[in-house]
Amino acid sequence: MAVVHQSCVGYGAEPFASLVAGYPDDDVYPPGDFRTEWGPIFHRGRLDGSARVLVLGQDPATHEAISRRILVGEAGQRVQGLLAKVGVDTAYVMVNVYLYSVFGQAAGSRHAKDALIADYRNRWLDALLVGTGVTAVLTLGDLAATAYAQWVKVQPAAAASLHLVAVRHPTYPEGFARASGKPLAETTAALLANWNEHLPDLASHVTPEGPTNLTPYAATWGPTDLAPIPEADLPPGAPGWWRGVDAWATRDGADAQTKRATISVVVPKGDRTWPAL
Amino acid sequence: MAVVHQSCVGYGAEPFASLVAGYPDDDVYPPGDFRTEWGPIFHRGRLDGSARVLVLGQDPATHEAISRRILVGEAGQRVQGLLAKVGVDTAYVMVNVYLYSVFGQAAGSRHAKDALIADYRNRWLDALLVGTGVTAVLTLGDLAATAYAQWVKVQPAAAASLHLVAVRHPTYPEGFARASGKPLAETTAALLANWNEHLPDLASHVTPEGPTNLTPYAATWGPTDLAPIPEADLPPGAPGWWRGVDAWATRDGADAQTKRATISVVVPKGDRTWPAL
Repeated sequence: MAVVHQSCVGYGAEPFASLVAGYPDDDVYPPGDFRTEWGPIFHRGRLDGSARVLVLGQDPATHEAISRRILVGEAGQRVQGLLAKVGVDTAYVMVNVYLYSVFGQAAGSRHAKDALIADYRNRWLDALLVGTGVTAVLTLGDLAATAYAQWVKVQPAAAASLHLVAVRHPTYPEGFARASGKPLAETTAALLANWNEHLPDLASHVTPEGPTNLTPYAATWGPTDLAPIPEADLPPGAPGWWRGVDAWATRDGADAQTKRATISVVVPKGDRTWPAL
Repeated sequence: MAVVHQSCVGYGAEPFASLVAGYPDDDVYPPGDFRTEWGPIFHRGRLDGSARVLVLGQDPATHEAISRRILVGEAGQRVQGLLAKVGVDTAYVMVNVYLYSVFGQAAGSRHAKDALIADYRNRWLDALLVGTGVTAVLTLGDLAATAYAQWVKVQPAAAASLHLVAVRHPTYPEGFARASGKPLAETTAALLANWNEHLPDLASHVTPEGPTNLTPYAATWGPTDLAPIPEADLPPGAPGWWRGVDAWATRDGADAQTKRATISVVVPKGDRTWPAL
């Protein structure tokens, strides 16, 4: 009973209240290319101006569609670990290039320059980057770098005081291994080498809120390289395992139609705290 | 783009911020009797004092575990329809007897008098009933009536200005048919007769916000007796089908252990707006 739970207070304050009231829908995001049926997923992290790093990700996936916050699944845990290395445990805010999950490999690139998608995203970036405590922008993957460049073009003065660190996307190892046929061990090593390369630069442009650990990554994920999502990032009452490193949400279905329609939510084995059934 | 979406602003304001920070956990709700693994689900509806009716339900189920608001599934749609009859479309607030889904038939009754469960629930009832615009309390089923009586005992002065309408629980037809072997048509008729009996009483103790329709229910559910959940009741970005009358969240699994661990979320056929796959 003495436990005090933290949670994300949501979007009650402006400009976020207006942003979540006026999100672009199927008319801007074609449902052939985006899973608009799961609704937009907006952000994760601090909206009160206390963020020191803005993370720009790509698009939400299954864990995000259920938890209603971005970068919560494995990709999110990898980024959380990267931020922890530079001493940032909660002083970040994350948004994605796209509000909806990309459907199919090529769809993401196809809409990289869509003006209406960029307009709405830029309103979020304005809110999070102009006159806030953010000093560094961490883009994950090419689409995020492209999206940030679009914002820089319209806000050159604000961008001039921000430091850009553009790294490979946290799911690059899986994606590129699948696309190229290369072994996952090789693509994982390539990602971690890329992150190592940018780690000092990120560290030198962010004031840490806690201890830093700039030991480079090894050639494979180590036991502490993934970090769980802070309780404060999810809505009130969200189960603890929604923030854990074990996967808990998967697309499921015998055919393409059913698979697009279905997300199966399964409490991880280690979190089944009930008496044996 | 011109669409303005409404959403539930959540629990940022006191006393709700403190209530969601200090919810009772496994030490108060034994996981053998409650599905605590899905986290607490607190409420649905107005928290700003504008509610005219408080609905006291029983416990959340699958749709509620995903949408993170109570009475969203079929039971909720039936209640929404009952409120619509007395001209209440949004001026309500709903809480449950239990924060977590009851596991097993008898577990609900077993904890009807638990002091720590009641203490926390009474803090919510204090917040929603003392000095607010609520004039009527609608309890759904015996456990809710019992829970309300516990609050009345500690807040007799506040309760004196509230009118209690105690009706059968919206899922009484299914529950009692299963338990008794009676046909569902018969138990449905019994529920609707019970609701008809209390309809004038509820109507006369609530100032409608819109048109009323006091036509009694027939002996079976009519096409307009269930009403969808308003967009304003769910968190920002929640998919529209989370508020619809077609079921979209079911427990799933080959054995008891897996079934307790799993909720399968499936976009209803009528809401699969994407191009054919």
